[in-house]
Amino acid sequence: MSGAFYPLVLASQVAVVTVLILAGYWTGHFLGGFAWDGSAQEFNLHPLLMILGLVFFYGDAILMYRIFRKENKTVVKIIHVLMQSFALICGGIALKAVFRYHNNAGIPNMYTLHSWIGLPTYIMFGLQYIGGFVSFLFPKLSERGRATMLPFHKYFGVALLGMVCATAISGINNKLFFALPNTSDTPYNSLPAQAHVGNFLGIAIIVYCLIVGFLVTFDEFKREEVINPEKLPLAHAEMKQFKTMDPTDTTGDQEVK
Amino acid sequence: MSGAFYPLVLASQVAVVTVLILAGYWTGHFLGGFAWDGSAQEFNLHPLLMILGLVFFYGDAILMYRIFRKENKTVVKIIHVLMQSFALICGGIALKAVFRYHNNAGIPNMYTLHSWIGLPTYIMFGLQYIGGFVSFLFPKLSERGRATMLPFHKYFGVALLGMVCATAISGINNKLFFALPNTSDTPYNSLPAQAHVGNFLGIAIIVYCLIVGFLVTFDEFKREEVINPEKLPLAHAEMKQFKTMDPTDTTGDQEVK
Repeated sequence: MSGAFYPLVLASQVAVVTVLILAGYWTGHFLGGFAWDGSAQEFNLHPLLMILGLVFFYGDAILMYRIFRKENKTVVKIIHVLMQSFALICGGIALKAVFRYHNNAGIPNMYTLHSWIGLPTYIMFGLQYIGGFVSFLFPKLSERGRATMLPFHKYFGVALLGMVCATAISGINNKLFFALPNTSDTPYNSLPAQAHVGNFLGIAIIVYCLIVGFLVTFDEFKREEVINPEKLPLAHAEMKQFKTMDPTDTTGDQEVK
Repeated sequence: MSGAFYPLVLASQVAVVTVLILAGYWTGHFLGGFAWDGSAQEFNLHPLLMILGLVFFYGDAILMYRIFRKENKTVVKIIHVLMQSFALICGGIALKAVFRYHNNAGIPNMYTLHSWIGLPTYIMFGLQYIGGFVSFLFPKLSERGRATMLPFHKYFGVALLGMVCATAISGINNKLFFALPNTSDTPYNSLPAQAHVGNFLGIAIIVYCLIVGFLVTFDEFKREEVINPEKLPLAHAEMKQFKTMDPTDTTGDQEVK
């Protein structure tokens, strides 16, 4: 499978570029572009920035550990945290945009299932960000502490990507119902151009997340760490002893060194 | 973390029982119960059976390998495939129900993003079922073939659970908009009782899937396999040799046995 690594990385980037183009086309063209005035155009920043932040920056930040799996880990860690910072900022502005739009238009906040899943996802991402920063970057836990935290950080990292998918799919679907009501000339159920763009955007997000998930969890693609013999478990220490023994030594002073 | 295993298994089952109760309450009470006559009551079988099949049976079928991680693998495999068969059947009837309802009511099929994600998820589940059956049960691949297939079967098993989440959240959210329109006395955005039941149903599905995902991917909870020394890699063979050597032997015929 190791031959599939770079083609899969390439496929993930083709998928996420497709995601960004479709997100820009949908919000910029079909939904009417952007503003910061509490109008429906301000709402449009919500899907665009959420997808830019929580899909692209978030997914590619995880992927950095695989794309640069042979590079210095500290450098990759800094790239990872920078990208996750962009993700956090984009998500924050995207949340602000939808709340401002709702408040301005007199639409209640936080009633859809989309919002009930999405806000906890963003908060959990914030906690994961703080937990990761404190554990692995600064002030940084002991080696033992980091080894304990790492599997949790990895699991919640991928699990949050799944929650991002569920939130994104429900959000896009909701917005398509609002933007293409049954009373319009081009209702959603007649599958006009906007419906195709929105639906393919959802499909592209799923495809991207499936490839990222595979790349970061498949054992063969794991990072290649420099092995420090001091940290190896007992079995290897025993093997080292064995190798320092000379089976042809008949002097009688043969012993485990 | 090994002390957390049974509490987490218990939590997963509390979550999925909550999912089933809320799904039954929502579809049976708020959406008006069930029928098989092409009516809206037939539609109600769609969310209920999808959740019963693709959330409960599917998730718990995966979990069997952890709950019975110390039991005979062939027995667990048969339980797993039986539960996945129920999942496949429930999903098939659920699909039939929604297509019959749409056709009867003159509603177009396959226009929502929910359906564009959901149908491929069901088809991929069918392929995963066939692939798993043929590889691991009958006619069954060679040991080497099974070892090659297993990481893919595991990855797509968990990834499909993520796709099920995205599909379920978008489906529940869509139905709540249809069932509680802005023109009704109790619109979705006024958060009536049905909205709470539906939204908490979505949350419970996410919680269940997060726990199942953690239980089946966390290294410490892996199955305890009976170790066959014949299949161990070279390092262990070398260790065995070392242990059969007698370092106090000074007879001169000391050699690697």
